Amino acid sequence: MLNERRNVLKKLFASLAGIAGLNVVAKAASNTTFDKQAKNVVYDQEIPLFSSSTKHGGFVFLAGIGAHFEGDIKAHTDHVLKEMENQLKKAGSSMDKVLKVSVFLHDLNDYKAMNEVFRGRFGSNPPVRTTVAVYGGVPGNSLVEMDCIAAV
Amino acid sequence: MLNERRNVLKKLFASLAGIAGLNVVAKAASNTTFDKQAKNVVYDQEIPLFSSSTKHGGFVFLAGIGAHFEGDIKAHTDHVLKEMENQLKKAGSSMDKVLKVSVFLHDLNDYKAMNEVFRGRFGSNPPVRTTVAVYGGVPGNSLVEMDCIAAV
Amino acid sequence: MLNERRNVLKKLFASLAGIAGLNVVAKAASNTTFDKQAKNVVYDQEIPLFSSSTKHGGFVFLAGIGAHFEGDIKAHTDHVLKEMENQLKKAGSSMDKVLKVSVFLHDLNDYKAMNEVFRGRFGSNPPVRTTVAVYGGVPGNSLVEMDCIAAV
Repeated sequence: MLNERRNVLKKLFASLAGIAGLNVVAKAASNTTFDKQAKNVVYDQEIPLFSSSTKHGGFVFLAGIGAHFEGDIKAHTDHVLKEMENQLKKAGSSMDKVLKVSVFLHDLNDYKAMNEVFRGRFGSNPPVRTTVAVYGGVPGNSLVEMDCIAAV
Repeated sequence: MLNERRNVLKKLFASLAGIAGLNVVAKAASNTTFDKQAKNVVYDQEIPLFSSSTKHGGFVFLAGIGAHFEGDIKAHTDHVLKEMENQLKKAGSSMDKVLKVSVFLHDLNDYKAMNEVFRGRFGSNPPVRTTVAVYGGVPGNSLVEMDCIAAV
Repeated sequence: MLNERRNVLKKLFASLAGIAGLNVVAKAASNTTFDKQAKNVVYDQEIPLFSSSTKHGGFVFLAGIGAHFEGDIKAHTDHVLKEMENQLKKAGSSMDKVLKVSVFLHDLNDYKAMNEVFRGRFGSNPPVRTTVAVYGGVPGNSLVEMDCIAAV
C-alpha cells in the first residue's frame, strides 16, 4: 500500500511542479520587514508562497527540506542535510548552531538508516530532534523532510 | 478508508466537544508569568488545557488551528488563516510578522489547493513553512491544521 | 492494521535499541558553543545524534519524548510529561514556563484520554499546543511523543 502511495505521490508532485500549473520557483529575495528577514522566497504563480529562511531576534527558521529525486533514505537524508547546511550558511548560521530539528519520515522503518547519516552532522553539541513518520504524507515523494531552528 | 476515518473522527470530535463531557471552552485570560504571556486559555472541565497564544522574548506562538465545519480544503484553509490573523492581532502581531508555519494536511492530495489559498496571505516576505499530511490524524475532522511562530 | 503496525514497531524498536547495533545511550554533557547550550547528548555508536535540550537567547528546546514501556495512553502521557518536567528543570526552566508543546499521537482515538492527563500540568497559563496523530509513526512503540519550547 505504501509503495502504491509513493507512486501516486510521485505523479501528484510531478503534476504539482509542472503540468498542472503550480509553477513554484525560488527567487533570490532578501528584504527586511522591521527585524524579520526572509530569504529565498518561493513563489506560486508569481505570488509569494513561503520563504526558505526567516530570521528574527537571534534565531533563524528554515522551511521544510525534502529530496525530490530517486534514491534511498540515506541519499535523501544526506541531500536534505547538505541543503540545510547551504540554507543556514546563506542565513549567516551553521550546522553547529542548530537548536532544534523536526524530522518527518515517509516510513518509520527508515529510522535507523536515517540516523546513520544524521549522526555527527551537527558537531559535538547537536540540536534536539523530534522524529515521526507520516506514511505517504511527505510532499514530493521525498523519503524524509526536515526543518530546523538555529541560532544566528 | 479515509472517508470512513473522517466519519469516525467527526463522531469522535462531536463527542469530545459535547456529550462526552470534555467541555472545552475558551475564556479570555491574559496573565503574565515573568516574561511569558498566555492568551485565551482553553479549558477542559475547568482545568487549563492549552492557550491560544503565548508570548516571550519578542516571539509569539499560536496553538494549532483547525476548521471544524463542513467544507472543502479551500474553505478550511481560508478559515484557518483568518483565525490565525485574528489570534496574531490579539497578541500584538500580524501576518507579515509570521516567521514559521507548520501545516498538517488531512490528505496530501489537498496540497495544491491549500497552496492556492495560502499564497500571498503573509505579504512579500512570507514565513518558512513545513507541510506534511497525516491521513486522518488532524483532530476534529479538519482537513488542515496550522500553527505558527511570529515576531512581536 | 494499527495493532499489527504496533507489533512491527515494537520489534523494530527493540532491534534498533539493542541487537541491531544502534547502541543509543545518553551521556551527561553540557558544553557551551557561543550562546547555544546543549544538554544530555544522545549518542549513536559514539557519534553525537541529538541533544535532550538546547538553550539559546532565553529559550530552551526539548527533544521529542516518548514512553517506551507497555502501558495505555494515560500512562504514556503521564510518563512523557514527567520526563518533560525533569528535562526542563535540568535546563533551568519549568512546566509553567513552557510556551509551545507539539503532541504526536499514535492514534487520534487517544485524544480525549491524553487531554485528561495533560490538562492542568502546566499551571494556569499553559502553553499553546498542536496535536496530530500519525498512526504508527511514533518511534519506539510509544503511544504519544511530545516536544516543547520553553522560556528560561
